[in-house]
Amino acid sequence: MQPPDPLEEWESPPFEPTVRGGLVYARGAADNKGNHFAALKAAEHWFRAGRPPVNLRYLIEGEEEISGVSLPRYIRANAERLATDYVLVWDGGFASDGVPSLTSALRGIVYTEIHATGAGTDLHSGGFGGAAPNPLNTLARILGELKDRDGHITVPGFYDGVIPPTEEEKAGWPRGPEYEATVKKIMQSDVFEGEAEYELAERLGARPTLDVNGFLGGFTEEGSKTVIARQAMAKVSMRLVPGQDPARIFDTFAEYVSELSTPGVKVEVRDLGSAPPVVCGIDHPAARAAADAFEKAFNKRAQPRRMGGSIPVAIDFQEALGAPMVISGLGQPGSGAHSPHECFSLDHFHRGIEMLVHFMDGLRTG
Amino acid sequence: MQPPDPLEEWESPPFEPTVRGGLVYARGAADNKGNHFAALKAAEHWFRAGRPPVNLRYLIEGEEEISGVSLPRYIRANAERLATDYVLVWDGGFASDGVPSLTSALRGIVYTEIHATGAGTDLHSGGFGGAAPNPLNTLARILGELKDRDGHITVPGFYDGVIPPTEEEKAGWPRGPEYEATVKKIMQSDVFEGEAEYELAERLGARPTLDVNGFLGGFTEEGSKTVIARQAMAKVSMRLVPGQDPARIFDTFAEYVSELSTPGVKVEVRDLGSAPPVVCGIDHPAARAAADAFEKAFNKRAQPRRMGGSIPVAIDFQEALGAPMVISGLGQPGSGAHSPHECFSLDHFHRGIEMLVHFMDGLRTG
Repeated sequence: MQPPDPLEEWESPPFEPTVRGGLVYARGAADNKGNHFAALKAAEHWFRAGRPPVNLRYLIEGEEEISGVSLPRYIRANAERLATDYVLVWDGGFASDGVPSLTSALRGIVYTEIHATGAGTDLHSGGFGGAAPNPLNTLARILGELKDRDGHITVPGFYDGVIPPTEEEKAGWPRGPEYEATVKKIMQSDVFEGEAEYELAERLGARPTLDVNGFLGGFTEEGSKTVIARQAMAKVSMRLVPGQDPARIFDTFAEYVSELSTPGVKVEVRDLGSAPPVVCGIDHPAARAAADAFEKAFNKRAQPRRMGGSIPVAIDFQEALGAPMVISGLGQPGSGAHSPHECFSLDHFHRGIEMLVHFMDGLRTG
Repeated sequence: MQPPDPLEEWESPPFEPTVRGGLVYARGAADNKGNHFAALKAAEHWFRAGRPPVNLRYLIEGEEEISGVSLPRYIRANAERLATDYVLVWDGGFASDGVPSLTSALRGIVYTEIHATGAGTDLHSGGFGGAAPNPLNTLARILGELKDRDGHITVPGFYDGVIPPTEEEKAGWPRGPEYEATVKKIMQSDVFEGEAEYELAERLGARPTLDVNGFLGGFTEEGSKTVIARQAMAKVSMRLVPGQDPARIFDTFAEYVSELSTPGVKVEVRDLGSAPPVVCGIDHPAARAAADAFEKAFNKRAQPRRMGGSIPVAIDFQEALGAPMVISGLGQPGSGAHSPHECFSLDHFHRGIEMLVHFMDGLRTG
């Protein structure tokens, strides 16, 4: 779970769940306690009625937001004991209002930190400007050159091997003015950026990305200081899609970044962590059971999609257990995971219990 | 005077002057108490011998480093009372070891702050990367595009009107391996950056510059956070040379920066302050008297130069009093003004008193 900051932006205390307009507001309500609790209630239903139609094993962990290693280690160490027919990764939510979603693939990630160093000491921009290497100018130039104006990433070979979604896969994807309006509302932006030749859902889930997540250098207090700082840093992450290998991407990226430097500025690229992209598909019995169960509970066919985020543990399930995987969840669009407006729909919660009851039954017959 | 931070880098306490190897180490020793004290001792010499050969008026202020307005206001309000034949701005020092310098011009400055804003809220880079406007990527791109790889500034019309130094002016400028080695040693860098077609002294004093002095945005703590931040900022200053007007440069710069933005990122450029470039020349009686006095005390002809820094009050002296101006000082190269190694040469101090005694005499006969 993420910390509740900034506290002053919460309308009600983050750890006192409060219902407003059919939504429970609380840190962790959507990401991920609402999902978990519905899953427990669905099991409870079956136990009260006798026993569940299939064997169930729940793995609930609290380390995801700090890149915890316990669950992956546990899964890999106990693969034999955990052997199963299907895995449900119950994380995520609806991409459009009222329409459940089923994830066919997750993006991977490479997260890097770049350190640029110029002279051996901070310098006065009056005395040395014009000849002193400026690591801030250079680092900005490097970051600016990593994408062109149309959002294409310039790292050599970056797109090599990318497996695009099939036309069949794309057919069911959310699109149209309503979907775009929903995304704009969540983003609080009137404009989308990036590769105009790809539709929105593809850009958000099936195209690799490159984003600067942070940068810091020199004098950043109020007012002016005429300093040429000796060092600067930036954090840059790339989302990867099926067909891209994190290790290869990191190496190419690090080499390219160094090449983009200017005389007198040394550049060091650090690897802060990575996760490979995951393909789980939605054309297997468990996915079909989930789609049927969603339809019964929400009166809507589930929308297939590729999810833009990463769920690092998914690759551990896939590699250690080898069972078909369903990745889905109950959060409504705009549930505000990680934000001071996090909330979870009570309607989704109740229908979600129903969906899970049907799902368990479907797995027996499927 | 600048604050003494970082304290831990001082070998002796910054406010307990300590002599090591013929140098007095203390905050403010070189910038500017050494100069001031030598000037007082020179006056004392003349008063002990009877009276100074010319009338003297000392204006010593402590606001320069905080862009104080008191001295400029005082000068302009009392121009008539302050009427004088010559002005000595006793700030600065030697450009090369053992060789005094006389400043023919000072660079001006325009100091700006750029704020870039994307979406209305911080976003998750997994869920929105690929379509969310990223103000960090955009601001980096803007900063990177302000100069080309050879150090030429790309702001339209930026160099219009620049008055280059004459061949005669450049003839006496410091150059050669020894001078370059001195500058490299002070900079603690083996490489010079910038316009290779101009010699070092010209780049450091007579060419306009553009430097990013600071930037900040997004997540900058330890580790990784996959955020697309909603805003970022940078501080950018430009040093101007004779022929460039700060107001015109600011307007063109602000417009150009806005044009360089990408869809969805709003850019605001603020003016944090400016000072026009100043030309004082070294071909007037006071400058010649200073050169003669330096030669007598240091056994070296003073090197003419243009100074890369700005002394904002110089323009007030020039405009309010209209008297020929001498800009020079006693600090040795590497005196470390503003740094935790600030020191002032005792040899320069003693010879400096002698120089000033001669200078006062020279003003009488000159």
